[in-house]
Amino acid sequence: MAGSNGSSTSDLKSKFLNVYSVLKAELLEDPAFEFTDDARQWVDRMLDYNVPGGKLNRGLSVIDSYKLLKEGQDLSEDEIFLASVLGWCIEWLQAYFLVLDDIMDNSHTRRGQPCWFRVEKVGLIAANDGVLLRNHIPRILKKHFRGKPYYVDLLELFNEVEFQTASGQMLDLITTLDGEKDLAKYKLAVHRRIVQYKTAYYSFYIPVACALLMVGENLDDHVLVKNVLIEMGVYFQVQDDFLDCFGAPEVIGKIGTDIEDFKCSWLVVQALDRVNEDQKKVLYENYGKVDPACVAKIKALYDELNLKAVFEEYESTSHKKLISSIEEHPSKAVQAVLKSFLGKIYKRQK
Amino acid sequence: MAGSNGSSTSDLKSKFLNVYSVLKAELLEDPAFEFTDDARQWVDRMLDYNVPGGKLNRGLSVIDSYKLLKEGQDLSEDEIFLASVLGWCIEWLQAYFLVLDDIMDNSHTRRGQPCWFRVEKVGLIAANDGVLLRNHIPRILKKHFRGKPYYVDLLELFNEVEFQTASGQMLDLITTLDGEKDLAKYKLAVHRRIVQYKTAYYSFYIPVACALLMVGENLDDHVLVKNVLIEMGVYFQVQDDFLDCFGAPEVIGKIGTDIEDFKCSWLVVQALDRVNEDQKKVLYENYGKVDPACVAKIKALYDELNLKAVFEEYESTSHKKLISSIEEHPSKAVQAVLKSFLGKIYKRQK
Repeated sequence: MAGSNGSSTSDLKSKFLNVYSVLKAELLEDPAFEFTDDARQWVDRMLDYNVPGGKLNRGLSVIDSYKLLKEGQDLSEDEIFLASVLGWCIEWLQAYFLVLDDIMDNSHTRRGQPCWFRVEKVGLIAANDGVLLRNHIPRILKKHFRGKPYYVDLLELFNEVEFQTASGQMLDLITTLDGEKDLAKYKLAVHRRIVQYKTAYYSFYIPVACALLMVGENLDDHVLVKNVLIEMGVYFQVQDDFLDCFGAPEVIGKIGTDIEDFKCSWLVVQALDRVNEDQKKVLYENYGKVDPACVAKIKALYDELNLKAVFEEYESTSHKKLISSIEEHPSKAVQAVLKSFLGKIYKRQK
Repeated sequence: MAGSNGSSTSDLKSKFLNVYSVLKAELLEDPAFEFTDDARQWVDRMLDYNVPGGKLNRGLSVIDSYKLLKEGQDLSEDEIFLASVLGWCIEWLQAYFLVLDDIMDNSHTRRGQPCWFRVEKVGLIAANDGVLLRNHIPRILKKHFRGKPYYVDLLELFNEVEFQTASGQMLDLITTLDGEKDLAKYKLAVHRRIVQYKTAYYSFYIPVACALLMVGENLDDHVLVKNVLIEMGVYFQVQDDFLDCFGAPEVIGKIGTDIEDFKCSWLVVQALDRVNEDQKKVLYENYGKVDPACVAKIKALYDELNLKAVFEEYESTSHKKLISSIEEHPSKAVQAVLKSFLGKIYKRQK
């Protein structure tokens, strides 16, 4: 995929990574705290371990969206830098959630390496590191956006999206407690609400919202954009649920454990909708068990129920619906933003 | 202690608690999230368990400071309400830190009840609950302060203080890792830096800073106030370290474990300063062990070194210094605020 201005994707990515280094250096000299050498080293290592190692889709999308909204106008170095800073704020937000989620889910690997809390000498200090990651966001925003007319909107946007994500995470966690008592509680509407709040706002809405604020838009005027991005987020999480079970661990960078963890995954919701009495028994008896034999029985059942085909059907229907919603939008530039986003995730393998 | 306007302390406290109920009701209907009944119940119970059960000193101090800064002017119901709201934001901040700290320290009791993460069915969901508590603060600020001229300053104040607290917590945690290798690293300057960042900003500075913002002051003009409050915070944490070892568990609401946890406590720093070779050996061999016999040996050593008397001396010297710093301030109203604060903690037993 070629970027605009003739620069290649890897070019854009390396420019984006340069901004990470700038932000990290600033944070390590933040005058609001007297760093000791040890403390500085700790934060340095913690940031490098947790922030830049993902696909960076969320962060890069801010720049991409911003360029598209500017419709071919020449962008100054400064504008690109600021869009990159907001992109990194979203990557910081993501890192914060992942560090804490991995502790809560007792996960093992993340992005192809051990989870941060599993690193020697880190342990539960990781919970505070998560908090620090979160705290870096307003530090960065203050340094680079203090004087902008949309500064307060940015602060509120990040606050609201974080609140929605944490609320979605809560819903996920308490639904799982509930599901352990009765699997029948896992319905499509329950799944949808969890993923909308837990994933869609911070993965899809916020990158575009940041770009809209940068071009001077009022977010209240963009309900359609928000709704489309939330639909895209739901679709993305369904893919995630699918890949958790059927993706290649070496490609997705982790070993899925949704079945073991009794998760309200899109797959189990679809299975519950399709089982006969015998299959239902298999599902109830084996779902949520750590035993690999139980997991294998669930996967065999998913195959029997043809869930791969169900997923493919879902994927193509969702794609069509999204495209037609996008084409309802009056602005071609906004359409381009949304289509670009969709293009990045359609039929993704990781 | 009688409040102003002739109302008693218990009166003020019950009015303050009414504001808690208002805020909780608003949060449980926050339109940014679609609550299910289960989710609403979860948050309701989590808030009641973690937010209002402390001494409420930090929260009440905002109202107290605000009244003193207004120097006897009549305050409207609305003004008192807003000061109370800010007071509760600080209590929310405190609850957030405590929920996460208890997980990290693997603590057992807090405020006379089991730590939230030890409650049946809660477990590590508590980490996300901590995040939710944190997220409630900007929700509350947005609802009640959006139009105020000092709204951005409030957001930045809470952000900065949270950052400082998390940084202090990090310093505490990594210093403990380091101290486990060599106890000699525990020096007074190390202790001071930890407690300044970990405790003083959020326990002492922020309540007064909130009151200053409410009366229209610019916080940059109040460096002396900040410095005095930070000194008070350090003094408060030294008391805390003392009470952790010598306080009555039924009075302080928890069983101290600083010795077992290898903490860089003010007591161990003082002990290291005073030990002879034999005593040093006892300290090195028994500090940081969970075994009650080891803990008893450390406590016996503290007695032998007369640390209770050292502490009393520290307490009275600090008090004198603080009073004389306070009296340097040109405003009698500000002096009253600072003295009121100091009065609440001098020679406290819990």
